[in-house]
Order: sequence, then C-alpha cells, then structure tokens
Amino acid sequence: MAPALAALLGDGWRRPGEASHALADALRALVVDGRLAARTRVPSERALSAELGVSRGSVSRAYDRLREDGYLLSARGAGSWLTLPAGAGAGPVAPPLPDATAVDPAPLDLSIAALPAPDPLLADAAARAAAALPRHLAGHGYAPAGLMELRAAIAARLTARGLATAPEEVLVTAGAQHALHVILGLMAGPGERVLVDAPAYPRSLAAIRAARARAVPVPLGEDGWDVGAWEDTIRAAAPRLAVTVADFHNPTGLTMKAAARAALATACARAGTVLVVDETTAELRLDGPPLPPPLGSFGPPGAVITVGTMSKSAWGGIRVGWIRATARTVRELAATRATVDMASPVLDQLLAVELLARWDDVLASRRALLKDRRAALHAALREHAPEWSARRVHGGLSLWARLPSPNATTLAAAAAREGILVVPGPAFSVDGTFERHLRLPFSLPPEDLERAVARLAAVGAEVAGAASARDEAGLATAI
Amino acid sequence: MAPALAALLGDGWRRPGEASHALADALRALVVDGRLAARTRVPSERALSAELGVSRGSVSRAYDRLREDGYLLSARGAGSWLTLPAGAGAGPVAPPLPDATAVDPAPLDLSIAALPAPDPLLADAAARAAAALPRHLAGHGYAPAGLMELRAAIAARLTARGLATAPEEVLVTAGAQHALHVILGLMAGPGERVLVDAPAYPRSLAAIRAARARAVPVPLGEDGWDVGAWEDTIRAAAPRLAVTVADFHNPTGLTMKAAARAALATACARAGTVLVVDETTAELRLDGPPLPPPLGSFGPPGAVITVGTMSKSAWGGIRVGWIRATARTVRELAATRATVDMASPVLDQLLAVELLARWDDVLASRRALLKDRRAALHAALREHAPEWSARRVHGGLSLWARLPSPNATTLAAAAAREGILVVPGPAFSVDGTFERHLRLPFSLPPEDLERAVARLAAVGAEVAGAASARDEAGLATAI
Repeated sequence: MAPALAALLGDGWRRPGEASHALADALRALVVDGRLAARTRVPSERALSAELGVSRGSVSRAYDRLREDGYLLSARGAGSWLTLPAGAGAGPVAPPLPDATAVDPAPLDLSIAALPAPDPLLADAAARAAAALPRHLAGHGYAPAGLMELRAAIAARLTARGLATAPEEVLVTAGAQHALHVILGLMAGPGERVLVDAPAYPRSLAAIRAARARAVPVPLGEDGWDVGAWEDTIRAAAPRLAVTVADFHNPTGLTMKAAARAALATACARAGTVLVVDETTAELRLDGPPLPPPLGSFGPPGAVITVGTMSKSAWGGIRVGWIRATARTVRELAATRATVDMASPVLDQLLAVELLARWDDVLASRRALLKDRRAALHAALREHAPEWSARRVHGGLSLWARLPSPNATTLAAAAAREGILVVPGPAFSVDGTFERHLRLPFSLPPEDLERAVARLAAVGAEVAGAASARDEAGLATAI
Repeated sequence: MAPALAALLGDGWRRPGEASHALADALRALVVDGRLAARTRVPSERALSAELGVSRGSVSRAYDRLREDGYLLSARGAGSWLTLPAGAGAGPVAPPLPDATAVDPAPLDLSIAALPAPDPLLADAAARAAAALPRHLAGHGYAPAGLMELRAAIAARLTARGLATAPEEVLVTAGAQHALHVILGLMAGPGERVLVDAPAYPRSLAAIRAARARAVPVPLGEDGWDVGAWEDTIRAAAPRLAVTVADFHNPTGLTMKAAARAALATACARAGTVLVVDETTAELRLDGPPLPPPLGSFGPPGAVITVGTMSKSAWGGIRVGWIRATARTVRELAATRATVDMASPVLDQLLAVELLARWDDVLASRRALLKDRRAALHAALREHAPEWSARRVHGGLSLWARLPSPNATTLAAAAAREGILVVPGPAFSVDGTFERHLRLPFSLPPEDLERAVARLAAVGAEVAGAASARDEAGLATAI
C-alpha cells in the first residue's frame, strides 16, 4: 500500500519547509482530483514514513491536518481512509479543493473547461425537442443503442467530417466519459494495460483506474506524438487499448499530424491493440492549418474506435455522446451499456437531434466566444505572469502553461485557499509528474480570466518566494 | 473456464433429445440475457464435453449452431468467443432472443416490464421543462450530484412516503440500474461478496458481475424473506453489500413485512453490511394491505441505502433515478459517478421536477393501466394455461409464473422463434435454477397479453409434448 501511494505521489509534492503541510496538500489533491478514490485506505504512519523517507511525526501531522479538514476518517482497529468533506464538490475536472476556510463564496473556477450554453439556440432546440417528444410516448422509451434518428444524425456528421459512418456503427452514450467507461467495461479487464498519453485527461485516467486496468503512459513530445515510443510500448506492454486525443489534445492542445495518425493506427492494428480516439474537442478548431482527416479514417476497419460528445461543442448540460465502431462492436457495447445505465433519455436525445440540425450555428457561437477568451488569457499571462510560458493553441478550450518552478500542487493548493480553482499538472499524470504545469482553460469570460491570472500569478510569486526563503533558512540551518 | 460455465448453466438446460440443440439454446440464452458478457471465451469442445458429461460431438454441433446463428466467433489460434448477431437487441431486461429466422416482424415483447408514457402529462411536463431550461443556460451545466431543485423534490417525496430525507442526502442518477452500478463502483471491489435474493432482477446480477464482485444468493421463501437464512449468510460470507427489493419484489411480486425489514436492517448494520434497497416498483401499489414503512427507515442511520427511479412509476424514456444515503456517502458516490458519466442532463432533470409536481396524477395513470392489465393476464392464464400457477400480486409490473415442468429455457427459445419474447427463470438466478419459472409482465395492452399467453401456452404444450415423445423414444431405444 505504501509503495503504491508513494508511486502515485511521485516526488513533485516535496518542497522546502514543513513536510507535513506539503504531504497533506499532496494527499488532499489526490483525493480531490480523483487520482485516489474516496474510501481508499491510507498506509500506517510508520509505513508511509519509511517509504517516503520523511519523519513519522511529519506523516502523523499530515494525517491530523487531513482529519481536521475532513479529508480523512479513522476508526479504531480499522485504520484510516480518505473521504470528501462537505463543500468538496465532485466537479467534472476535479477542482483542487475548495477547503472549508475558503473566503470567496464564488470562486474563480479554472478547473472546468466548459462554456455556457449557446442561447437562444439551445432554448429553441429544447422547445422543438419537447414538441417532438409525443411521437415517442407510446413506446417504453428504452433504446440502449440510441434513437435511430440521432444515430443517423451523428453518422451524417461524422461522414461530413471525413469519417464515413452508417447509423448502425453509432452507439449513443451519455457523453465521452461514459463512452470510455463503457468501452473499458467491454474491452479491458483488471490488470490489462491501456496505453495513454502523458499528460492525459484526468478523468480518462480515473476511468481506467476504476476498471482496474493499468495505464501505461507514453510521453508526448514538444511537437506531438512519438511514433517510435508508441511502437516500443505496444511491443513491450501489449496493451489491450490505447487512448488518445488527436485533435486539440487535452491538456496540451496539440494536434496529431496525418503521418502520425497513419503510423499509430497501423501499429495498433498490427498488435491487436484497439485505438480509442477521443474527439471531445475536435470540432473546436479556431484557426491554424486545416485538421488532417479524423484518426478513425486511418487503419483497417475496426482498428480505431472514435468517441465524441456534444458537451464541449454545444453544452455540458446535454449528456449526449457517441461511440463509432463496427456494427458488431456497437451491439456488444450496447449490451455493456445496458448494464451500466440502460439507455439515454429520449428528451435529451431529441434535443441533440435538434442541435445537430443547426450544428454550424452552434459551432460558430462556440468559436466566437473561444477566440476572444483565448486572446484574453494570453494577454493576461503576458501582463501578469511573463515567466510562465504557454504555447498558442489552434483549438480546444485550454492552454498547458509551464511554470518557472516545479510547484504546481503547492500553487494550486494556495490558490484554492484564495478562491481560485485550477488543476495542477500532476492530475494529468499517473505518477505525480508535471509539477511544472497548470492547465488553464480559456472558457471563462475575459474579465474573469484577467482577474484569475492576476491572482494566480501573485499566489505563484508568493509560494516561490516562500520556497526560496525556506531554502535559505534550510541552508542556514544546515551549515 | 469449463467448470465456471457449467456452474452458470446449472442442470436446467438438459432436456431429452439432441443435446446439441439444448446446449446451444442454453448458451444463447446466457449471452442474450447478459449472464455472460459478449466477448466471453468459451471452453474448448473437449473441456466442456468432459465437464458436462455430454459427447464431444454434441458440444461441437452446439458450437456450430451458435456460429451459424451469429452468436459465436472463432479465430485460428485464438479460440472462440460469444458475440451478438445483428437483430439481437440489448433490451433492458434481456430478450431471450429474436433469432434471424423469426417470422413475426413485430414480436410480442414480454421481456420488458414497462408501460408507455402517461400522456398528455408527460408532453405537458416536457414543454414546461423546456420553458424552465433558460434559467440554467448561463452555467456550464455539470452537476454530478444533481440539480438542487430536483434533489429537494426527491427528498420531499421520500419524506412524504415515510423516509425523512434532506436534499443533500440525495444523489440524482440516470435510473436505478445506474444507481446500483455507481454504488458497486464505490463499495464493492473484485471478489467481494454481495448478498442477493434468489430469484433477483437479472440486470442487478449483471451489474454485480460487471463489478467482478460475487453474488451470494439467499432463496426467497413462498412467503418472503427468510431472516434466519440472511443472518446465517451474513455471518458466513461477510458480504460488503446486500441488495434486495422490499416492495413488489422483481420478479416474485412479494412485499417484505415490517418485522423482516427491522430484522434485516439490524442484521446488516451489526455486520457492517450495507443494505441496498431497490424501490423501483415501490410506488406501483395496486391494492392489498398498506405497505410497511420504507426499508430505509429501519436500522441505524447510514445502514440502508435506498435506490429509486422514475422509469417504472413514470416512463422508461426518462433516465432519472436517485440514491438516498448519508450526505457523506452521497458526496463520495457523486465523485464515483463523475468518473462513470459525469452528471445527468439538465433538461431531463427539469422534466423530472415537473413530473414530481404532479406525481399523484402520474401514479394514478399507471395504476389504472396496471390494474386492467393484471386482470387481463390472470384471465388469459386461467383460460389458456390452467396448469401454470401465478400468485396474484398487489403491485409492481409482473407475475412469477410457475410451469408444470422445468423447461423454461426451452420454452422461451421456442417462443422466440415464434415472435414472443419472454425471460425464463434462470435469467433471475446465479446458477441456472428456476427452470420452472417465467416472469410474465402485465405491462402490455390486454389484447396483446391475451394473444401472448395463448401462444406461449401452445408453445409450452408443444415443447412438453416433444419432450415426453422423446422420453418414450429414448426409452424405446434404451430397452
């Protein structure tokens, strides 16, 4: 237990000064962003102390602190386990923890990369969906694979984007997260390996952990996917699945080149590894070169499974996504899905049909917002955090900012205490790496982005200053 | 592999005559009703032949038959595995299988216990929900625990039914199936035990299998729950969870008496076994004595988790259910749920709020339909199948009919070939038992119930006749 926890913590949590504070922050971040499930038992103080090479007193004080803040429960004879206090929401991208002492009742939430709905498009579509509902009321309402009219509309959209698809090759899901969960349920058993990017979307990693499969990370290079590293990992680990985001990768914003698409699809197909491509943000292209054809259009039939959703392109409050696979795999996934949650609601599916009928307008409204907000975020970073670097992205919803020092967890914890929620880099890893990174969504209004970055930069300077002051103190003591 | 499959098959599939036909029917039933997942590998012919004590030729012919019908795929060097052919739907209660040769394009579907929607109540509510949506469009739309107004409405309804509940003790889910799936995800790891009734709802058993937990069945008596057997099993197996349906149990229609509620809640609480009560049909009381207080109102706080849904009381096309637990457990479940599918759709939640505002009318419309249809089903059974027995139930949606001979799988397979879908008893078991039972929903219109029972009874007489003819033939040969 202690070695597994130490592996998950990595080394990034260590910082100068009182080790118990750093350890408590790091453990709290793990449970809040879902890298450790609620009800996970923690090792004994003695075991964790030995494993991490910190004093038993530090572990003990860290546990005490977590207990006081409501993140740890203990029972005589049963040890201690992690939990969630009141106020620790279960946000979609894992807020790094509003604690009980947060002063701002309306935090600036950079933990969620999501836009408000495209109104009045959405309200109009809902009215039309409600008007269309009576056609369906004579039936029992269950359709585990989805309403045929929605499957056809999704297939038509995929076909228009360059991925020829028939309606029976589409399974309607409750979003992309649900799609991955269902795919894992059918295809990846406990202990089986799933290749993932490093960094990768935290909830994808959480879904893999929940399936008790093993995520095998392959680092993304500065310019994108390392085909050689994928091929080596596929050979060495023989993963059942590989999961990637080829268009505006979350969190890096990278887009996979056509040659890499062809090479990865081929490498996976040859090894019998099913390549799952998450197109959550694929329709949020803002500028830059045209996208290569969808990854699903490379490789032999059945080699690639494509996952998509309306959550980012339209609105998170619609829970409609899809899986595009062979008709046989769709039938098998539908049976798995029926065990998870039976079927999608009819009214929400009709809403999706209506929105797909005006899809170009929906996307145009998203792009207009995102372009402004992306510019505002870059401007705020230039002004307030000139030492942070963040590559300009051509689409998606967020930047992957690089900090001058490896203290993202500390920074996020301190920011949360001031009412700014942001997800630190290690949430995007399986081993505590990426302490030099923060994901910064540009989905908030420009004025909120400006305020948030100004305050984040100030917090960053404070924690860096505290660290170097402590460095000096530490050195002084050590002489 | 072969012993596990043999255990799942039990002995009920055996019938006189060609063993390959019986074995193929039984294996097909397993994959169609979800007792075996698609992509499950089957044992070698040699191994299964040895395990079942039938000739290798019979197993070989059974596999050939499944291959021809599209239920088995084989690849050189990789063995054979189960799959679903085109036309094998993934219905909510596991249709026992429209095969490719089915003659009737519109089968009489007794596999699904569900009503059409209460129209115009539902259409009106949808229009009001669409009108209420704009209030929510400025946010990002994600609420993993559910919209507060819906949580409050559900809490109020539970409180009115005798289970005092606060809004923060309610998690909105995508129905009861999803609720159980999320509970298992948080609370039951691979290999851990879950006490279940025998018989139990097939998809509850499937959810337990998907979590790789172990269902431990406790038989229901003629009159209900055997408190002593529960206590013994809790002592012997130390299950993490126990799952039951106390009000109009699916499939038996039994209702748990108040004394048994108190005893089971106490026994579970004492052992640290969390008792999950599925109230899917609790609001569908048609007549008979008043129900005891909800099971969740017995036992110490936190001992019982209550699951409910609008699917049966209102309509299956609404995917709104709930979990009632302590506020802490609700937060932990919300985090688990966010990993499964993030959150419920806002529009469907608003629809649920509107329906709960007219809940008495909704329930009255269901009861009126169900009373008529229950009477029609009993009348049809009296007329066409006087040798079948089915206890009158006071609520819910189905009867648990007892056949004169143990041939439910054979009967269901033969009925499917004639376009009548019905779930045989073994689907409700973990070990192939209940070959003398069929679940007969009374949710179809009276005239369909009449036709279905007439044809089922005729098929039943045929398969029984064929069996006794073969018995004689077999005897003749054996002399």
